[in-house]
Amino acid sequence: MMVRFVLAALVLACTPALADEGMWTLSNFPTEKIEQAYGARIDGDWLNRVQRSVTRLEGGCTGSFVSPEGLVLTNHHCAMACLSELSSQAEDLIGNGFNPRARSGERRCPGGIISVLTDVEDVTAKINSVTAGLESAKANEVRKQELSRLEAACVEATKQNRSIGPLACESVSLYQGGQYFLYKYKRYDDVRLVFAPESSIAAFGGDPDNFNFPRWSLDFSLMRAYENGKPARTPNYLGWRAEGPNENELVFVAGHPGTTSRLLTVEQLKLQRDTQFPAYLYRNSELRGRLIQWGKTGDEPNRIIQRSLQSYENSLKVYRGLQRALLSDRLMAEKAATEQGLREFVLSKPQLTSEVGSAWDDIASAQDRYRQIYDRYQYLEGSAGFTSRLFGYARQLVRGTAERNKQNELRLREYADSNLPKIEAALLAPAPIYPDYEKLTLSFSLDKMREQLGPDDPMVRQLMSEDSPDTLAARLIDQTKLADAATRKALWEGGTQAIEASTDPMIVLARQLDQEARALRKVYEDEVQAPVASGQERIARARFAAFGTETYPDATFTLRVSYGAVKGWNEKGEDIPPFTKLARLYERATGKAPFKLPQVWLDARDKLDLDTRFNFVTTNDIVGGNSGSPLIDVEGRLVGLAFDGNMHSLSGNYWYDAELNRAVAVHPAIMLTALRDVYGAKELVQEISGKR
Amino acid sequence: MMVRFVLAALVLACTPALADEGMWTLSNFPTEKIEQAYGARIDGDWLNRVQRSVTRLEGGCTGSFVSPEGLVLTNHHCAMACLSELSSQAEDLIGNGFNPRARSGERRCPGGIISVLTDVEDVTAKINSVTAGLESAKANEVRKQELSRLEAACVEATKQNRSIGPLACESVSLYQGGQYFLYKYKRYDDVRLVFAPESSIAAFGGDPDNFNFPRWSLDFSLMRAYENGKPARTPNYLGWRAEGPNENELVFVAGHPGTTSRLLTVEQLKLQRDTQFPAYLYRNSELRGRLIQWGKTGDEPNRIIQRSLQSYENSLKVYRGLQRALLSDRLMAEKAATEQGLREFVLSKPQLTSEVGSAWDDIASAQDRYRQIYDRYQYLEGSAGFTSRLFGYARQLVRGTAERNKQNELRLREYADSNLPKIEAALLAPAPIYPDYEKLTLSFSLDKMREQLGPDDPMVRQLMSEDSPDTLAARLIDQTKLADAATRKALWEGGTQAIEASTDPMIVLARQLDQEARALRKVYEDEVQAPVASGQERIARARFAAFGTETYPDATFTLRVSYGAVKGWNEKGEDIPPFTKLARLYERATGKAPFKLPQVWLDARDKLDLDTRFNFVTTNDIVGGNSGSPLIDVEGRLVGLAFDGNMHSLSGNYWYDAELNRAVAVHPAIMLTALRDVYGAKELVQEISGKR
Repeated sequence: MMVRFVLAALVLACTPALADEGMWTLSNFPTEKIEQAYGARIDGDWLNRVQRSVTRLEGGCTGSFVSPEGLVLTNHHCAMACLSELSSQAEDLIGNGFNPRARSGERRCPGGIISVLTDVEDVTAKINSVTAGLESAKANEVRKQELSRLEAACVEATKQNRSIGPLACESVSLYQGGQYFLYKYKRYDDVRLVFAPESSIAAFGGDPDNFNFPRWSLDFSLMRAYENGKPARTPNYLGWRAEGPNENELVFVAGHPGTTSRLLTVEQLKLQRDTQFPAYLYRNSELRGRLIQWGKTGDEPNRIIQRSLQSYENSLKVYRGLQRALLSDRLMAEKAATEQGLREFVLSKPQLTSEVGSAWDDIASAQDRYRQIYDRYQYLEGSAGFTSRLFGYARQLVRGTAERNKQNELRLREYADSNLPKIEAALLAPAPIYPDYEKLTLSFSLDKMREQLGPDDPMVRQLMSEDSPDTLAARLIDQTKLADAATRKALWEGGTQAIEASTDPMIVLARQLDQEARALRKVYEDEVQAPVASGQERIARARFAAFGTETYPDATFTLRVSYGAVKGWNEKGEDIPPFTKLARLYERATGKAPFKLPQVWLDARDKLDLDTRFNFVTTNDIVGGNSGSPLIDVEGRLVGLAFDGNMHSLSGNYWYDAELNRAVAVHPAIMLTALRDVYGAKELVQEISGKR
Repeated sequence: MMVRFVLAALVLACTPALADEGMWTLSNFPTEKIEQAYGARIDGDWLNRVQRSVTRLEGGCTGSFVSPEGLVLTNHHCAMACLSELSSQAEDLIGNGFNPRARSGERRCPGGIISVLTDVEDVTAKINSVTAGLESAKANEVRKQELSRLEAACVEATKQNRSIGPLACESVSLYQGGQYFLYKYKRYDDVRLVFAPESSIAAFGGDPDNFNFPRWSLDFSLMRAYENGKPARTPNYLGWRAEGPNENELVFVAGHPGTTSRLLTVEQLKLQRDTQFPAYLYRNSELRGRLIQWGKTGDEPNRIIQRSLQSYENSLKVYRGLQRALLSDRLMAEKAATEQGLREFVLSKPQLTSEVGSAWDDIASAQDRYRQIYDRYQYLEGSAGFTSRLFGYARQLVRGTAERNKQNELRLREYADSNLPKIEAALLAPAPIYPDYEKLTLSFSLDKMREQLGPDDPMVRQLMSEDSPDTLAARLIDQTKLADAATRKALWEGGTQAIEASTDPMIVLARQLDQEARALRKVYEDEVQAPVASGQERIARARFAAFGTETYPDATFTLRVSYGAVKGWNEKGEDIPPFTKLARLYERATGKAPFKLPQVWLDARDKLDLDTRFNFVTTNDIVGGNSGSPLIDVEGRLVGLAFDGNMHSLSGNYWYDAELNRAVAVHPAIMLTALRDVYGAKELVQEISGKR
């Protein structure tokens, strides 16, 4: 009886019940469940068209084609990297927006890449066959080699396929290693900026309003995929339903949710709670203060920090929400009960018991090991100790040239052939470098490294025996030549010989660190990653035995569709209606950032319909990476643009709370109003409306 | 059997065993236990002399008389407020130190007060008799009234006593309300700065070394108590044992540990863990970043921030340590087991069951209520929303003048007659105000208030409907006249009438907030503080029933003595020796802050004995507030100066870990060497050595 009882509780906790839970793969889409809940049947055509219309922005967002000529709708905050890199002291595209009116004015985003998923191939059996019977560190190594091999072979094969190829191939592990796939993408590497509003209306309310609702953010932008110097032909795209969805209407969000942690073990959650999140939050709260204060020293510093500040503030709010979730007894108790239920289920089946073995305990030991190396690993191998774009270049050059010389399967995974084009694009794209900003972040991160590792850590002593973080950062940034793309290109093409001969101080630093950083990486991979991978794979088997695949895997920045309804919620006794309207935007404006409206909006006020819907909420289960995802109705029309979640949605990393969890979207009516009546972008409105 | 077993476990967890645990009151000193462990017997004379030699610095530190002429030894960091207030752009006492050589050069610390405990009176029965049978909110109110009444009567009575009075009287609750006392202090309100080294040697290693060991901090300063314009006569003082203690020698720390939380319930600890500490840490990490970055804009900003930055950095490290402790499963499991044991003990005794009732659950409900109001209470009634010295003055003026008009017992506790002298001294003392610094902290706190309470909070809207935090802060600081001590004096003396008539914008703001802030205070007192006080009092009864008073109470910034031995510890396999020596100070100097030595130390190097002991560690159980405490040997001689704990000691807020918990002290040899051979302060050396 005990096992049945616990399992019943477990099923409730682990599988979507009536709630609109889940970020579903297209091959395992809950068609029946949706039909039962909403009376609407989604067919294969709908799913196919959605798959081909939705794009992945490699910077970490989603977009969708909204015209047959490669026009992509995404969030303003997803265009921040591009806006920032096209801006200069003379031209502030973040502050002033971008509206060239003519297509010839569209400007290429440095390093911008857009991908569309074309095909998915199950390679679980291939992976399992090469790792069978190996101890975890060896299995981890062999698994990575096989994944690199499969990716390379996949790319090679698509080159033969004249009709669609060449494609990019990425391996993906679903259900924590329960299944392995090759995801194949068509890539567009000529992405151009088409339209962006001013950041003051795109992020109206700024950080105070972020993750809050009611909300008035015009968080959209338009880009365009080009091929051979011309707008790409994209016959699969989403038409707009300008009036948007009704309250309680069924809507879908299609996109690339980044990561969730719903299947982690309790001990993995504790590591996040007691080690990862505190370290992140304290460090970056302080950095936030440094950036804000530096931004007050002038217009140019203020402009320079905008992009990274928005990103840090967003992450800080996310991590605080995650930390809050993990500090809740209710959540941890449920996670513990669910885990205990599965463990007891395993113990009730002798065959499964022998297969799963000590999976949970192995993962727990790996977490202890991770705690021991955590700080040094983050500071020397991760980016915590050397927060600088120029150092990033140096490390890519030192590592990349060395790794390139190795056989594909024997490289660190990120330098596998299938990844090199992305790395090269980022390394060689021209991008503005702001030395004072670089000095600030590099000095700050060196300071934190000394604080966390201690002044007597061997690497800290090596770097700062006669230097302070400030003097070291200043010398490095002043003397390196890596800000120049041609210099980077020469070193990249010159390979290890050029790198070894270089006296550029940033290259010298990256070389100096490399051995110790790689050693930490090896400890991490063999003693943390490997036992976790092995443990998770075995737990996945237990989960499949208990539940089949009627559940959805954790998010992995791969294509998923969630379903839900347009619906407000009750916040501590107060009903929050699902839609906001334009009128209140004007009432909330204070004239001071972040509640300051652009002049064009003040000027346009009288001619606008103040009843126009602005933002709205739905019950869809989404997470970071879904930014820029289209909301789609049952007929496949675009009815909104996801850009945020409410505060409760942050705990969605660990579970889905149907009562409180809400996605926040930009309404199509306000986007069309803005383009037509505020910005005079008539051609874009015509293109979107299919009238061009 | 069950009860006995649990109690046995409980005794281990709750009472000091062999370990050197405990911050003991002098009336309940563990003489037997010490004799058993160390073979030395401490008598009443020893305790009496220590009580009269040890001083409390009202800013939150300890000191001790080290000559018959009122000379007080304390930490450099305890003199920071004084150093900062005596400094100006022209004269940087923090950076350059203070060494007037002649006694006539000693300078009065604005608002400085030093107290010496003269007597303690048990008033438990009086308090219990007035609160008996009342429900918690009423009992809380009546208790406070009675405490104010007793304090006032006590002060009145000492005025009659010609031999020693008048004294200051403060009520103190020990064992979480298990006992109430009146503590009577002789006050010195003319405190002068005598000597301070440069902050670069006093806090050598700065924040990176703080709470770490091995350590090389010359964290001492000297002050002097004056009476009637002359050095106070202090026949009770500590002579120095210049060679310091031996390894493993028994030493005592006498001082005023601030607060510990060893007796809190599990639900109270969870509130700290999930609400208080995260809020504090994120807010002040960001503020730290703002201050550091502002400090980089020039020498004067850099000078201005030193005092508060050191204090924030210290607090951040403390709170991180506390947070880390509460995130440890081991600690929380032990706390839960101890609590469960006591609850079961209570349930085994019908009489006790009816007395204690639902104490733990009442406290738990109060924590939930506290969570609901936490942010608004901190931002509107606490100091989180208006971090500004000038606002602090305004609130004291608005509140103080109103409260003064009420009958003593009916006032908010901090305005009771017994407290008014301290409030008045702080309010009227001239102190430098730095407008740019004030704007930074005030704007920052307004910004955080808007972030946490939300832009639509009624008070936020009232204050910032047309203002940003920056513009509001700038207007308030630029226009207020409260920086002028005479203006404050006029308002204080003018009373409520003057306050109501004032158009000073800071006074207007404090008036505008007052009603809502007081309402939140009332909710806090009635619905959080009252049920907690009642619950704790009942739990204290249970604890006395189970353990008697063989334990020590939580720290309350009242006089305590701890005992322990000079002893290193083992850190992850490595033995840390107990003493550091001067030689390594020079090796660790990098020439850049915070590892930059003052020129006098570089110049003096050749004539110094590099084997001189510098800092050392002991097993004494201490906590913040013990800063500046003398270390005393069995013969009553000063053998060190406590200034810090190691990282493990931070969990000492919750429990004492004999293996790892260490106090860190300045060695007498290095203080004498510094005075004599580096700073040429011969007269002070003679005074300390009794040769004057």
